Amino acid sequence: MTITVGVVGGGQLARMMIPAAEALGVRIAVLAEAQNSAAQLAATAVGDYRELDTLLSFANSVDVVTFDHEHVPTDLLAELEKRGVQVRPGPHALIFAQDKARMRQRLTESSVPLPDWRVAISADEVEEFVGNHAGEAIAKTPRGGYDGKGVRVIRSAADVGDWLAIGEVLLEEKVSFSRELAQLVARSPSGEVRIFPLVETVQKDGICAEVIAPAPGATEELRARTAEVAQMIAEQLDVTGVLAVELFQARDDVVVNELAMRPHNSGHVFTEGAVTSQFEQHLRAVLDWPLGDTSLRHPWSVMVNLFGAADHMRIVAALETSGLVRVHAYGKEPRPGRKAGHVVVSGDKLEDVRDIARRAARAGE
Amino acid sequence: MTITVGVVGGGQLARMMIPAAEALGVRIAVLAEAQNSAAQLAATAVGDYRELDTLLSFANSVDVVTFDHEHVPTDLLAELEKRGVQVRPGPHALIFAQDKARMRQRLTESSVPLPDWRVAISADEVEEFVGNHAGEAIAKTPRGGYDGKGVRVIRSAADVGDWLAIGEVLLEEKVSFSRELAQLVARSPSGEVRIFPLVETVQKDGICAEVIAPAPGATEELRARTAEVAQMIAEQLDVTGVLAVELFQARDDVVVNELAMRPHNSGHVFTEGAVTSQFEQHLRAVLDWPLGDTSLRHPWSVMVNLFGAADHMRIVAALETSGLVRVHAYGKEPRPGRKAGHVVVSGDKLEDVRDIARRAARAGE
Repeated sequence: MTITVGVVGGGQLARMMIPAAEALGVRIAVLAEAQNSAAQLAATAVGDYRELDTLLSFANSVDVVTFDHEHVPTDLLAELEKRGVQVRPGPHALIFAQDKARMRQRLTESSVPLPDWRVAISADEVEEFVGNHAGEAIAKTPRGGYDGKGVRVIRSAADVGDWLAIGEVLLEEKVSFSRELAQLVARSPSGEVRIFPLVETVQKDGICAEVIAPAPGATEELRARTAEVAQMIAEQLDVTGVLAVELFQARDDVVVNELAMRPHNSGHVFTEGAVTSQFEQHLRAVLDWPLGDTSLRHPWSVMVNLFGAADHMRIVAALETSGLVRVHAYGKEPRPGRKAGHVVVSGDKLEDVRDIARRAARAGE
Repeated sequence: MTITVGVVGGGQLARMMIPAAEALGVRIAVLAEAQNSAAQLAATAVGDYRELDTLLSFANSVDVVTFDHEHVPTDLLAELEKRGVQVRPGPHALIFAQDKARMRQRLTESSVPLPDWRVAISADEVEEFVGNHAGEAIAKTPRGGYDGKGVRVIRSAADVGDWLAIGEVLLEEKVSFSRELAQLVARSPSGEVRIFPLVETVQKDGICAEVIAPAPGATEELRARTAEVAQMIAEQLDVTGVLAVELFQARDDVVVNELAMRPHNSGHVFTEGAVTSQFEQHLRAVLDWPLGDTSLRHPWSVMVNLFGAADHMRIVAALETSGLVRVHAYGKEPRPGRKAGHVVVSGDKLEDVRDIARRAARAGE
């Protein structure tokens, strides 16, 4: 009996689970939003993940359901669970990746280090929060934001009037950070936890542009701290699969920025950089199989995203940069600013590795 | 325009080209022998590769044709080429991987080091050859053998009477070798050549059981020699794609045993062990894209084949051996003695790495 992992969503994360599934000898089935998705090779169904019937019929064709994204309504997932479907991560965990206000509330209760925050429903509440934070704050829509969308730097309630007209706004202190980090961890239903090495992430316009593994100059103390925070979140929220914790390094500590309960852009570097990729680790975790070693294979690995288009001219140009360049094209329709792929370069010297990766990512643009 | 690579044959080699194709952003289409092939995820056609119409219709749906095995009749491939299909490697090269007698003849002309050999069509010729080689020789059917099939150690013409009744028999000196090696090389149509590190192979009953990268204790002289031999064969035979040269280390030199013009069992170790896998290198070569770096990622990597079945119980048992174990299951129906998958383990100490890989391959048997 071949075991089948069902993935809701046909984006690049589902696409990159395909090699891991093939290696593990498990079948992968994808419920894609549309024909010609990035994961079309494994797409067994095309439909709307907001419809219970679509989800149920997909779930009945697989052994465990997991996700390419966190947008599936949790009430539908709870209904699936009621009918005996294995959903990993479950809706009780996923809700905290979907709703940033609930995430802040939940993590506050667990004493996880956070920026100062509040939920505002009126202009007065916004003005008060901004006034208490030197005239500046970060405003977020609690749901639906990604890649810099749904996030604004604000100086007054007027900057966020349109959002207030629709609903709640999450306000956060603008953290003065020295750099951004990501801590990935995987947890299986039986409780096994594996920590990935801490990485540094470089954002441009709110979108992950570059990742360095390991995070340069990270002290053992810092690494122990981020591992502790990520493991605590995974355990207290009962996350199964990969959890990505985006962090600010600030105030001689770290502060949790965002959570993702799935493979994450910051972990792409591990496909070449670590013994076990985040995609394989995610599948092993949701299957409750033993987790893999996460040690780094190279002193340094750098991932740089490709934006716009990743047609074969550009891929060839990237490969021509150096034989060391590893490319991953996502097979998506090109769109300005859209992630179309990424490159990873590994080696002994960070400067060289980063230089090659950056040149490869720009080549043929 | 997405480029499509067409692979004739739906075995594990085609299966393991899928991740490479996904990463490079090229489409992969497989002409499989049957439903539920190892490469079924990419199977776009099921049919008989010995039928011109089947091949033509498949070839017309792709940009370049390559192979999971070397059994496609070369007259059909020549017909495809006549009609403008890109076939890589072409039939003029592939014939030497199909027909061991023609391979011996061609390599003799190129002064490649070989065992003493001859083609016999009568019992007298067999007796003469055996008599000249201390009463013992290796007999091979010139075509169709693999994994120890079509190969016999003989002491008289009677041992090979059944084969002589059908046709020619290739006779080879039984080389007294110290060990077996494999030298992989990739060559693109525009002439770029990349040499993989030399590996040691361990056969059991004529089947590859274990591969060690790099070949332990290989001197620089030996490595230069095997690289020279493999490159010479690739260039003189106009091979495109990956060429695997199986060698005996003997007589203070090497002797060419077999050739394969496709990814090969001895190169599976490079998926984790080298910067560029043989599957990606093969695709890049047949596409005439720049070839990748073949440097080793780890001091030692060991591959051990799994025979029989690679169901999920066995895969889990292998993964439980150590977090360092990388598995590749082939998704094939289990059959005694059939290769069902392999494991690769990498690290700093050969003894440890080999021990873990062997234990993982035996686990759950």
